[in-house]
Amino acid sequence: MLDIITKLRTEKPLIHHITNFVTINDQANITLGIGASPIMANNIKEAAEIAKISKALVLNIGTLNDIDSMISAGISANEKGIPIILDPVGAGVSPYRNECLEKIISNLKLAVIRGNISEIKFIAGMSKGATGVDASNEDLKNINEAADIAKNLSEKLGSTIVITGEIDIVSNGEKTAKIKNGHPRMANITGTGCMATSVIASFCSIEKDYFEASLTAMLCMGICGELAAETSVGNGSFKVKFQDAISNINYELLQKRSSYEL
Amino acid sequence: MLDIITKLRTEKPLIHHITNFVTINDQANITLGIGASPIMANNIKEAAEIAKISKALVLNIGTLNDIDSMISAGISANEKGIPIILDPVGAGVSPYRNECLEKIISNLKLAVIRGNISEIKFIAGMSKGATGVDASNEDLKNINEAADIAKNLSEKLGSTIVITGEIDIVSNGEKTAKIKNGHPRMANITGTGCMATSVIASFCSIEKDYFEASLTAMLCMGICGELAAETSVGNGSFKVKFQDAISNINYELLQKRSSYEL
Amino acid sequence: MLDIITKLRTEKPLIHHITNFVTINDQANITLGIGASPIMANNIKEAAEIAKISKALVLNIGTLNDIDSMISAGISANEKGIPIILDPVGAGVSPYRNECLEKIISNLKLAVIRGNISEIKFIAGMSKGATGVDASNEDLKNINEAADIAKNLSEKLGSTIVITGEIDIVSNGEKTAKIKNGHPRMANITGTGCMATSVIASFCSIEKDYFEASLTAMLCMGICGELAAETSVGNGSFKVKFQDAISNINYELLQKRSSYEL
Repeated sequence: MLDIITKLRTEKPLIHHITNFVTINDQANITLGIGASPIMANNIKEAAEIAKISKALVLNIGTLNDIDSMISAGISANEKGIPIILDPVGAGVSPYRNECLEKIISNLKLAVIRGNISEIKFIAGMSKGATGVDASNEDLKNINEAADIAKNLSEKLGSTIVITGEIDIVSNGEKTAKIKNGHPRMANITGTGCMATSVIASFCSIEKDYFEASLTAMLCMGICGELAAETSVGNGSFKVKFQDAISNINYELLQKRSSYEL
Repeated sequence: MLDIITKLRTEKPLIHHITNFVTINDQANITLGIGASPIMANNIKEAAEIAKISKALVLNIGTLNDIDSMISAGISANEKGIPIILDPVGAGVSPYRNECLEKIISNLKLAVIRGNISEIKFIAGMSKGATGVDASNEDLKNINEAADIAKNLSEKLGSTIVITGEIDIVSNGEKTAKIKNGHPRMANITGTGCMATSVIASFCSIEKDYFEASLTAMLCMGICGELAAETSVGNGSFKVKFQDAISNINYELLQKRSSYEL
Repeated sequence: MLDIITKLRTEKPLIHHITNFVTINDQANITLGIGASPIMANNIKEAAEIAKISKALVLNIGTLNDIDSMISAGISANEKGIPIILDPVGAGVSPYRNECLEKIISNLKLAVIRGNISEIKFIAGMSKGATGVDASNEDLKNINEAADIAKNLSEKLGSTIVITGEIDIVSNGEKTAKIKNGHPRMANITGTGCMATSVIASFCSIEKDYFEASLTAMLCMGICGELAAETSVGNGSFKVKFQDAISNINYELLQKRSSYEL
């Protein structure tokens, strides 16, 4: 499974993003860093066209721009069998945001949904949703409950569900993994979640088992978070060293440092 | 006063930004770094909603997008008593920009306005305004004149006025502070002014004395500029080390290094 | 020729950008770093106005936003004799993108066009265009062919043509330069091409010989790429050190390290 990283770096697949204006640069850079080729084409007049020539599609509702482009690109991706990865940023935070999210979920077949516990609980109908774009502490009671939520939501929607947090969870309904890699500093910079989604999309573009693709992606993220934390002295250098680590991660590092249980 | 930093890091208040597309990532990161939680929600269909659940609202006209969202969020913030911090980027640079600025100032009660000397002079009706987004040297004759402008404009508008430059000025009409902390390299990267506004908003969200909140914010900015300059070798590393310093600033550092006079 | 850098740092000309949302921050920072002053004003209600007071105009179609603002600002720049530098990101990748590109090229007189080999070949009518925003390996057969393409396209359009790649090419039809400076890692981060365009625009704003301005710009880019590669350990630090190098490049360094042939 972990050798997908080698395949990814060889194939350099095109990853289409329709995303927010805050972390769009970080997402493009992490996509390049992990070994794929990003294209951030949000204009509705070409979104469907670009989706067709891409190998995966990221839909991120962070700044709620271009929802119509997302649906248009998404339909095009579904027709071609190209995996769509949804990042439901701030799910629950406003009625309009929820309406957009509902539109995406009801119109598109999603390969993977990645969010924090607050966002995923909202989609699962279990909470009023996020109180911002960061996870609320109240929403995480214990890791087994979170794993159950991911499992049940995966069965319901037919999508692989990834919940990122202190322990990351990946579930396809049948299998559920808990990932121990990672570092608290990852929450100190903006865009870590968005970048995780880009990395998941990169792996899903070349590995049809989205559980394995998502698990490998989250292992990369967690290990790089640990590596960055070892040598950084604040938020600025953490972000730089994290991008350094992503561009250097390889099969050997993944084998040596991966820590998860099924 | 300087202990607001400790309170901020404990409370992690939500800071709503409607801002430009150039420095939006830097502003989100500095807001996290100083201890608050950013949300960059510019869509008019949720802007008022998000303003209501936030603790401060930043309005930055840098790329002149979303002026209607700004008014909508601003009215909502005013109703709830949530402080609005205005960043009048490039005030005076074009008729349409001035029109937008006028719309904001005449429709909203602003807690703080932070700009460079060219921008503040334009708002005070004392110059034709900025010739770009950077301050014009011609606009700063001497620091006492700048202090008077801030004081008079504060009395006129009922807002705390912050003028950033070699010496930063903070005035609420009654009290005027001149801040000596800072470093020339802060002008060499884009977004230093925008980031200052985010830090001011973060402090204003938990301290109702906006003079003290703004003064503390500018001391943080200035000290972190000095710390970053000590160890950086160019614009790239300066920006990284500045974000590092912001995430590490604390009460002790503020007490030790603050340099200002009332 | 190489002493334009000294003039640039003294004059600090205003460089107007209408550009994509991915690399807009990097472009603002590199413009400051090389010694000019960026203004990123994309709103159609002020674009023409801002173009008039600027010394060069960058049009970058990366995210295909604001095409009407580009035409409006471009007409204004042409009337005033202000050089326009076009970055045809992803030329050929979708019909709508090609339509926008055609609109720009047929309506405006362009001082310089800078793209990768896939983009320039598309404009020259020699290929179906890019398959993403990165160059396709198939499009570069050999460097002499690329030089011929640049020369011929320059004669046809009356614009200086810059093709960036392992060897960079600059041609004004009469003279064609091949630049050996540079480093493969420059392709590993997003925005290197966009930044090159900003640096070209900065030099064209103060040097009417656009061939010399573009050549000097590309020498700066290449040398800074080499300097950054020497001390960086991954994509994150490469980007930081590249911005460091740009802010430190000067006449002496240019003289010492420039490597090109006419």
